[in-house]
Amino acid sequence: MAQEAVDVAIVGAGFAGLTAARELVNAGRSVIVLEARERVGGRVENYYLDDGTALDVGGQWTGPGQDRIIALGKETGVESFPTYGADAAHIEYGPGGRVTYKGAIPDNDPQTLGEVVQAIMALDQMSAEVPLEAPWTAPRAREWDAMTFQTWLDANVKSDAAKARLTLAIEAVYAVEPQDLSLLHMLFYARSGNGLMTLVSTEGGAQQDRFDGGAQLVAIRVAEELGERVHLSSPVRRIVQDAGSVSVGGDGFSVRAQRAIMTAPPALAGRIAYEPAMPALRDQLTQRAPMGCVIKVQVVYETPFWREEGLSGRVVSDEGPVKIAYDNTPRGGTPGVLLTFVEGGDWRRYAACSPKERRKAVLARLELCFGAKASSPIAYIERDWPAEEWSRGCYGAVFPAGTWVACGSAIREPVGRIHWAGTETATVNCGYIDGAVRSGERVAAEVLEAL
Amino acid sequence: MAQEAVDVAIVGAGFAGLTAARELVNAGRSVIVLEARERVGGRVENYYLDDGTALDVGGQWTGPGQDRIIALGKETGVESFPTYGADAAHIEYGPGGRVTYKGAIPDNDPQTLGEVVQAIMALDQMSAEVPLEAPWTAPRAREWDAMTFQTWLDANVKSDAAKARLTLAIEAVYAVEPQDLSLLHMLFYARSGNGLMTLVSTEGGAQQDRFDGGAQLVAIRVAEELGERVHLSSPVRRIVQDAGSVSVGGDGFSVRAQRAIMTAPPALAGRIAYEPAMPALRDQLTQRAPMGCVIKVQVVYETPFWREEGLSGRVVSDEGPVKIAYDNTPRGGTPGVLLTFVEGGDWRRYAACSPKERRKAVLARLELCFGAKASSPIAYIERDWPAEEWSRGCYGAVFPAGTWVACGSAIREPVGRIHWAGTETATVNCGYIDGAVRSGERVAAEVLEAL
Repeated sequence: MAQEAVDVAIVGAGFAGLTAARELVNAGRSVIVLEARERVGGRVENYYLDDGTALDVGGQWTGPGQDRIIALGKETGVESFPTYGADAAHIEYGPGGRVTYKGAIPDNDPQTLGEVVQAIMALDQMSAEVPLEAPWTAPRAREWDAMTFQTWLDANVKSDAAKARLTLAIEAVYAVEPQDLSLLHMLFYARSGNGLMTLVSTEGGAQQDRFDGGAQLVAIRVAEELGERVHLSSPVRRIVQDAGSVSVGGDGFSVRAQRAIMTAPPALAGRIAYEPAMPALRDQLTQRAPMGCVIKVQVVYETPFWREEGLSGRVVSDEGPVKIAYDNTPRGGTPGVLLTFVEGGDWRRYAACSPKERRKAVLARLELCFGAKASSPIAYIERDWPAEEWSRGCYGAVFPAGTWVACGSAIREPVGRIHWAGTETATVNCGYIDGAVRSGERVAAEVLEAL
Repeated sequence: MAQEAVDVAIVGAGFAGLTAARELVNAGRSVIVLEARERVGGRVENYYLDDGTALDVGGQWTGPGQDRIIALGKETGVESFPTYGADAAHIEYGPGGRVTYKGAIPDNDPQTLGEVVQAIMALDQMSAEVPLEAPWTAPRAREWDAMTFQTWLDANVKSDAAKARLTLAIEAVYAVEPQDLSLLHMLFYARSGNGLMTLVSTEGGAQQDRFDGGAQLVAIRVAEELGERVHLSSPVRRIVQDAGSVSVGGDGFSVRAQRAIMTAPPALAGRIAYEPAMPALRDQLTQRAPMGCVIKVQVVYETPFWREEGLSGRVVSDEGPVKIAYDNTPRGGTPGVLLTFVEGGDWRRYAACSPKERRKAVLARLELCFGAKASSPIAYIERDWPAEEWSRGCYGAVFPAGTWVACGSAIREPVGRIHWAGTETATVNCGYIDGAVRSGERVAAEVLEAL
């Protein structure tokens, strides 16, 4: 087995690993990036239609405050453009059928809207008390981590309609159901992304802009800069530390380094064999940080026909599998693409169906929203992230009740020569591409300090 | 790499794996048992003092209704004897200092006692609605899995004293804090073990009897029967299925079989590399089933001096690190052994201390309970289970809010040629040695049916 020697071995060629590699190379250090998949980008991935059109089947959006990914996009020459539909009409599909609205939130039911806004304001106020560097030290951390978000919802929101709307917000942002995360995690994550309202918003929010050519193009360009330092199809199985170095190995390869950077989310990082074994608290974290569940579905048509009717392509609905939809048409305007997410409880329900049944269910809901044309797409593309071996879920890790207080302090704590990165370790925009980039910058600085 | 071929490859030589192997061999099948540790017994382990005395540093007790482990003890010729202290006085150490009592529950505070008993009765009544084979189908499963046990406690128990006592019960039975498990999991597990009162009781309960020579002796005897079929120090890294067989491999070995049985708890089973990759729902389960946290501490004296004062050696206290203690003296009567557990939040607090500080803190509390003699032991033995690489916690997996409803249905569902066992898969006495034995019997029948 050939053994290469470098200053830093980096596990994962997603945005965290690529950013860290880039920073370290710029600082004159030698690196190798070991990626399990046969591509770079991590949970950000392009799918190419026959005509070469790139569809984002993973993370795709950026928004205000996501400065580091925006900067990286500029540095790599990948242009941004706004998500379609700012001035068009959005659809709300509820028990009463289809209604349209404009702006950030459906306003056809002012009472529910009031309740929802009040709840979001209360949550954002609470989240201001959660220190992003150490959520477990919040004054009410114990209380907030001891309850699920569902418990908070039941105790603090009265109407079923408002509860349903807030549940949808949780599903859309975290890709889990309200019982799957603690109130403390919900608050930390929202504050990390500049408030729940930012996270659910398009214009002025986290879904504001897209990358022309797909978000993975940014990763591909960084990887091109790094050249042969990036090794694809190289799943890391074992990390061995001794007094003088760390050895990162897989099937038929081994890299010796001064420092290692692990960018996989905690649940997957926990599947590596470490020698010596991980400290118990760090191991507990890897047992208690499951990934969210989502199938990203894109339905392709000759043209974005809904635009002709003044529709934005956006849907909010109380019933799956299409609870959320967007116009994801490429910048050029064709083909027309509708994007929807099958998340949380719907993920379980529909991931258990055959692809044919699932497609049928998605198209039936789209038809209700957009008419008969919606039922005859020219392509139908799905990405089931929990089924993807090297991601095992999206968008990111979601901490259930108890995790932050029990073992949150292990999240970035280096273990000997091993340093931790990945969007889960970010304090700003945790869970987003921007958080991944920031974690790569932070870990590179940490490693440079240690070298 | 030599490749052996057998009917069934079994991963893990704990009570589940050994029982399954024994059943399969008795049915005329060829098996290999692959164990990562250099010993059999799994989370059941003997530690031998210099004079040969066996101390149980892992699971040790049996009680009424634990019929399968009791039968296995008899079949292997390992005798049982009652936990000491049925008729002696127990210590309750609270804010007011030391008081003694007899019987199952401290009765010096009748009002608290009443509240606690009422809560336990309410919980046991609710647990009767939880189907052991499928907790996620309980009529109120969604509601009960959406809240932590802490939330239930806050809503249903008034006095701080009663809450503290019930918190202690959770810590003692599950080795976590009340926010770390869902109400549904608490109810399932309690029903599985014949009710919370059974689980916290000694006489007539789950701590009633011990094995002479240590509980691991039962496993050692079964392993002796199996002989060379048991391979120690053989951590399994990868399980590959193809059309005709399953291959179970590790560093330098590979076993080809018709069926494989995985007995590791879900969190550890999730760390194996599977080809093809696990279905997403099964993988989610492995991400959402963390292990409890406990250091088992045994303090050894020349004699059980507390017996002379009419004390049972049992302690219940509101303050760690000695919240629970037992007389764990071997059957012969010497040396004297006091046993305590450092669990849940106390585990975090005291696992972070140096061994010296931790010992000092334990002995200080024992001295408060048993006087000056307690501070001068002849030996002090600790087992930190979350730090043990091949267990990563004890007593078992504890499901946080959301797990049972989201992915509980994957718990025993075979994946191709891979079948699941281990105490976490048991419907009766889940989490106990008896549950492990039952799971071994169940999986052996399942595999025989499939072969």
